[in-house]
Amino acid sequence: MRAYSIESFGLDKLAVITRPSAPLGPHAVRVRVRAVSLNYRDMMTVEGTYNPRQKLPLVPCSDAAGEVVEVGSAVTRFAVGARVMTLFAQRWQAGRPTMDKLKSTLGGPADGVLAEEIVLSEEGLVAVPEALSFADASTLPCAGLTAWSALEQAGVTSGDTVVVQGTGGVSIFALQLAKLRGARVVVTSKSDEKLERARALGADHGINYTSTPEWGKAALAYAGGDGVDCVIEVGGAGTLAQSLRAVRPGGTVAIIGILAGVASELALTSVLMRNVRLQGVMVGHREGLEDLTRAIVRAGVRPVVGERFPFEEAPAAFARMKAGAHFGKIVVEVGGR
Amino acid sequence: MRAYSIESFGLDKLAVITRPSAPLGPHAVRVRVRAVSLNYRDMMTVEGTYNPRQKLPLVPCSDAAGEVVEVGSAVTRFAVGARVMTLFAQRWQAGRPTMDKLKSTLGGPADGVLAEEIVLSEEGLVAVPEALSFADASTLPCAGLTAWSALEQAGVTSGDTVVVQGTGGVSIFALQLAKLRGARVVVTSKSDEKLERARALGADHGINYTSTPEWGKAALAYAGGDGVDCVIEVGGAGTLAQSLRAVRPGGTVAIIGILAGVASELALTSVLMRNVRLQGVMVGHREGLEDLTRAIVRAGVRPVVGERFPFEEAPAAFARMKAGAHFGKIVVEVGGR
Amino acid sequence: MRAYSIESFGLDKLAVITRPSAPLGPHAVRVRVRAVSLNYRDMMTVEGTYNPRQKLPLVPCSDAAGEVVEVGSAVTRFAVGARVMTLFAQRWQAGRPTMDKLKSTLGGPADGVLAEEIVLSEEGLVAVPEALSFADASTLPCAGLTAWSALEQAGVTSGDTVVVQGTGGVSIFALQLAKLRGARVVVTSKSDEKLERARALGADHGINYTSTPEWGKAALAYAGGDGVDCVIEVGGAGTLAQSLRAVRPGGTVAIIGILAGVASELALTSVLMRNVRLQGVMVGHREGLEDLTRAIVRAGVRPVVGERFPFEEAPAAFARMKAGAHFGKIVVEVGGR
Amino acid sequence: MRAYSIESFGLDKLAVITRPSAPLGPHAVRVRVRAVSLNYRDMMTVEGTYNPRQKLPLVPCSDAAGEVVEVGSAVTRFAVGARVMTLFAQRWQAGRPTMDKLKSTLGGPADGVLAEEIVLSEEGLVAVPEALSFADASTLPCAGLTAWSALEQAGVTSGDTVVVQGTGGVSIFALQLAKLRGARVVVTSKSDEKLERARALGADHGINYTSTPEWGKAALAYAGGDGVDCVIEVGGAGTLAQSLRAVRPGGTVAIIGILAGVASELALTSVLMRNVRLQGVMVGHREGLEDLTRAIVRAGVRPVVGERFPFEEAPAAFARMKAGAHFGKIVVEVGGR
Repeated sequence: MRAYSIESFGLDKLAVITRPSAPLGPHAVRVRVRAVSLNYRDMMTVEGTYNPRQKLPLVPCSDAAGEVVEVGSAVTRFAVGARVMTLFAQRWQAGRPTMDKLKSTLGGPADGVLAEEIVLSEEGLVAVPEALSFADASTLPCAGLTAWSALEQAGVTSGDTVVVQGTGGVSIFALQLAKLRGARVVVTSKSDEKLERARALGADHGINYTSTPEWGKAALAYAGGDGVDCVIEVGGAGTLAQSLRAVRPGGTVAIIGILAGVASELALTSVLMRNVRLQGVMVGHREGLEDLTRAIVRAGVRPVVGERFPFEEAPAAFARMKAGAHFGKIVVEVGGR
Repeated sequence: MRAYSIESFGLDKLAVITRPSAPLGPHAVRVRVRAVSLNYRDMMTVEGTYNPRQKLPLVPCSDAAGEVVEVGSAVTRFAVGARVMTLFAQRWQAGRPTMDKLKSTLGGPADGVLAEEIVLSEEGLVAVPEALSFADASTLPCAGLTAWSALEQAGVTSGDTVVVQGTGGVSIFALQLAKLRGARVVVTSKSDEKLERARALGADHGINYTSTPEWGKAALAYAGGDGVDCVIEVGGAGTLAQSLRAVRPGGTVAIIGILAGVASELALTSVLMRNVRLQGVMVGHREGLEDLTRAIVRAGVRPVVGERFPFEEAPAAFARMKAGAHFGKIVVEVGGR
Repeated sequence: MRAYSIESFGLDKLAVITRPSAPLGPHAVRVRVRAVSLNYRDMMTVEGTYNPRQKLPLVPCSDAAGEVVEVGSAVTRFAVGARVMTLFAQRWQAGRPTMDKLKSTLGGPADGVLAEEIVLSEEGLVAVPEALSFADASTLPCAGLTAWSALEQAGVTSGDTVVVQGTGGVSIFALQLAKLRGARVVVTSKSDEKLERARALGADHGINYTSTPEWGKAALAYAGGDGVDCVIEVGGAGTLAQSLRAVRPGGTVAIIGILAGVASELALTSVLMRNVRLQGVMVGHREGLEDLTRAIVRAGVRPVVGERFPFEEAPAAFARMKAGAHFGKIVVEVGGR
Repeated sequence: MRAYSIESFGLDKLAVITRPSAPLGPHAVRVRVRAVSLNYRDMMTVEGTYNPRQKLPLVPCSDAAGEVVEVGSAVTRFAVGARVMTLFAQRWQAGRPTMDKLKSTLGGPADGVLAEEIVLSEEGLVAVPEALSFADASTLPCAGLTAWSALEQAGVTSGDTVVVQGTGGVSIFALQLAKLRGARVVVTSKSDEKLERARALGADHGINYTSTPEWGKAALAYAGGDGVDCVIEVGGAGTLAQSLRAVRPGGTVAIIGILAGVASELALTSVLMRNVRLQGVMVGHREGLEDLTRAIVRAGVRPVVGERFPFEEAPAAFARMKAGAHFGKIVVEVGGR
């Protein structure tokens, strides 16, 4: 079977290799991959900026959906033919995060899913309902679950106002999931056209941060009262000051974005003086992924797949991710739709 | 009656003035002040570094205990002779923080309590049980309640490990209250002698951060496993990196310290990657102060009053606070013990 | 001004009296009542079955909306002309319930709101946004807030399944508010026509409990998996067994209904064996009422006013409540619409 | 190896059988049992009153501690020689309860641990720290964890008052663990001598429910204010009315006791009117058992083993359990101490 492999860091070094199928332990499941979604983390991993100590070679990417083609002798959760998606942190089934759980992630440190076939423990897979396509499902393990976990940890509920930065994968999920919870959503973008698309997905208000660099103040004014209840912070150091400007006393700024190597000039004073919470959100666990899947299927929410690339053009998909001009998720389709 | 007044900023400008007694509205209570405890915030206010836009003159300090000497016609909570303490944010009775509640604080923006007599709404006072002296009670409104709220918001419970930075008022309360909840406590200090005193109060472990500048690593090693569950962060920008080194995935760093004007080089990456929470703690509400009082009285915990000054020597008390060599709380006694 | 007064218990004894306007204390507000909504509790109070020790005479009802016509000298929250609604438990502003707060309810033990004019503390009133009519607003203080508090305490969120018993005021609010949170809703009724109306309001599934007396089993089957996440239990002793049949392990049965004098044959075993929570819901506090109001206005949810009666026909409104054939809330309009 | 087996229901029918050692799958661990603690559930299971549909034969009991003597090829958590205890619900590792998790319990429906040797998945075992003896550790999986989960779910913290009914295994743990959290504890018993022993373990107050049948009222009076914060309800139908008498508005009654077949005359009205929570507590998950173990070891709390019986006298241990005169836990020691 074929897989992409990082032999040395650099987007131009990404190579397709051919590997024999891995043997199957008693609790393992072999999955024929049908769709892989990309995250910013994957691109950083390919470039060597996510974890410079990552051992190579490495198959990149963590988020895939596909069909079960073989099961180990002790497997009880899935049968051949089942539709499944991957769990980002393979050993984080539920409960609190631990170092051991957080280290069990695909696409680094362990081999990932940008391949025609993967072999994972049955605990590292979640069932995909019929209502979701493989491409849909492939967007859930990181981007969908991160947005879900952020809203959960911030306790977002009906009547709240949530600010979503930009229109990347996590942000668009946060928009959809916050609306599903009955919240109002403010989206920021540098593109009026993307703000329009966000409105079509349910956003209540859009702020162009190029024309309104003090967008935190604008979000506060829109929210009324003391400010917004939650900010989904993906931009990092450069945007945190505005997020803290927008958020109400007692509110939450969910720290989502990949900020490796970036230090922040943070006025901790405002965190303190307004009793604000900065909550790091490291994706989430199996129960969360199951809850998210249940919620969107029951409500008829469809993930936003912005662009699709065939397996052979995965490097172009990474380049697209790097360009940052996408809307929603970028998906690589494997072995035809 | 006499009161201290900030006529212009600067510790040497603090003056004793004489004022006529304020008139009493129907819901107001007149209290003869018996003890006032100092907070770092009070010293900054006197010096003009807490809120440079603070209007003057201002009576400083927020935390007092005393006796009720007169009550308004509609007052139901207290009778003449009752022993009471002040609530820091006078309008924060319970529930979530709001700007309105957070602005209702004594000792800035409103006149404070370093006076022989104060007049407050009955909602801005809490009963003092017999088991506590006036000096004891005067330490609770800010330092005690901040420590209580931090542990509450972090969900500290038995079996947890908590790091307390230094041996100031909030830190010593956090030590005592974390022990009361069945947690283990690690104290940091630059003084071995203070570490010894902290151990006498129940601390399980002490780290001298002068001899062990990498104290976060040392705390992690002491805690075992993935790290400590909660850090009471009072030092601010300079210590946050060590706090983040010590805390376990999913743990909490409670942001307590007064850091006005200090920006932080914060590796937000570690907040994100380990799913950590930075929780600003802006003192707390009436229900919390009542809960705290109940808890310490029932358990026989006594606040640690490190030093006492008579009313006439309040400036020396502020100087002592500024020197930072105290242990526990500094109390100004008013009108004899 | 005119008011209804319970001079002795019994629906036929309800009398219209004329009273002079009450004097106004400094924190009090005089409200010209425009709409009053009825609760089952009000009817029981009139009949003497809610609290037989209630002192008479008593003005019944707790939920009203109207206009401010006069304010006391110290009032800061409202000006003349403001649109307001009542808070059920006048002293429950936020935080935990206490006996003192729970005893501060209108329409018993204190005089209620079925009158042309009422005088309450400014803390006992909440602002009514323009988007809500007086009739709309009058439905929120008990029925709306009870449904809100139940969903809050059960932690209902997107993807959950909620069972709502019947189509009375609380149940229809619970339906609307659970949908607003992204949950699926199952409604039970003895009337197929009411089930149809519930579906028009967003209900996902209806069960006629006359034709399907084992509705708990049917709800479980509909929910799939381990059962429903939350049951809004208004029927009391007779329905609890079915509720416990429907609910999943770890789920919540919110106890809402007025069950005075009714004892229950309850299989506590099932509560234990499935780790279920029975949560009594006694309306809620001011912050909850403000949150509820904000949530429905922002989402454009309109309370369901099933029937309207003029002030003069209030006894007929009570009779209608007793007959139990209404859908949503019964409102008495005062002084014209 | 020898094991006790329920061949037909009845305490006198309990038989010692000899079985060959079970084969070992790749994730399985063979444990030489050293101590087994009894729960009321075990006695009911032996007598056939816990689950009359339980298939026989069955090895009874769920709670054991011992040494690892062999590990499967894929086992990573334990090595030969490790000291371990059992997890009650083998598949409840963390997170929410599900039917599947709740059905995975030892000593019914699956074979239990009253045997010289057991074979379990590595996920169904938890490490025992050096500070605990095998007898100590054997008391934790049900009795200890149930008490821990009850206090967790009720949010018991310092300053709270907790009522513990009786002096059986769960109750004594609840007493110790509530004290460890800084709460006050009231114990009820029919024996003044047992109340004295409870006081020696830290209980703040004892009520003899024979001489004070209205013990709920007495507990309320002791607590002061609105009542106690939490009741550990083990007696079931007969005592619930008193528990509801004692508990404050917003408080929790944790339903713990085995009440199979017992229906309750429950005044749901009081649950409703005081916003009380009845919380069923079905033991708990692995993370809870690890937390509990950590908490007691760090604080030096020792489980109370009231009586010990050798393996050969296990039937006498069950008879002792049935007599109900024990204090703390009854432990069967296997293969010498």
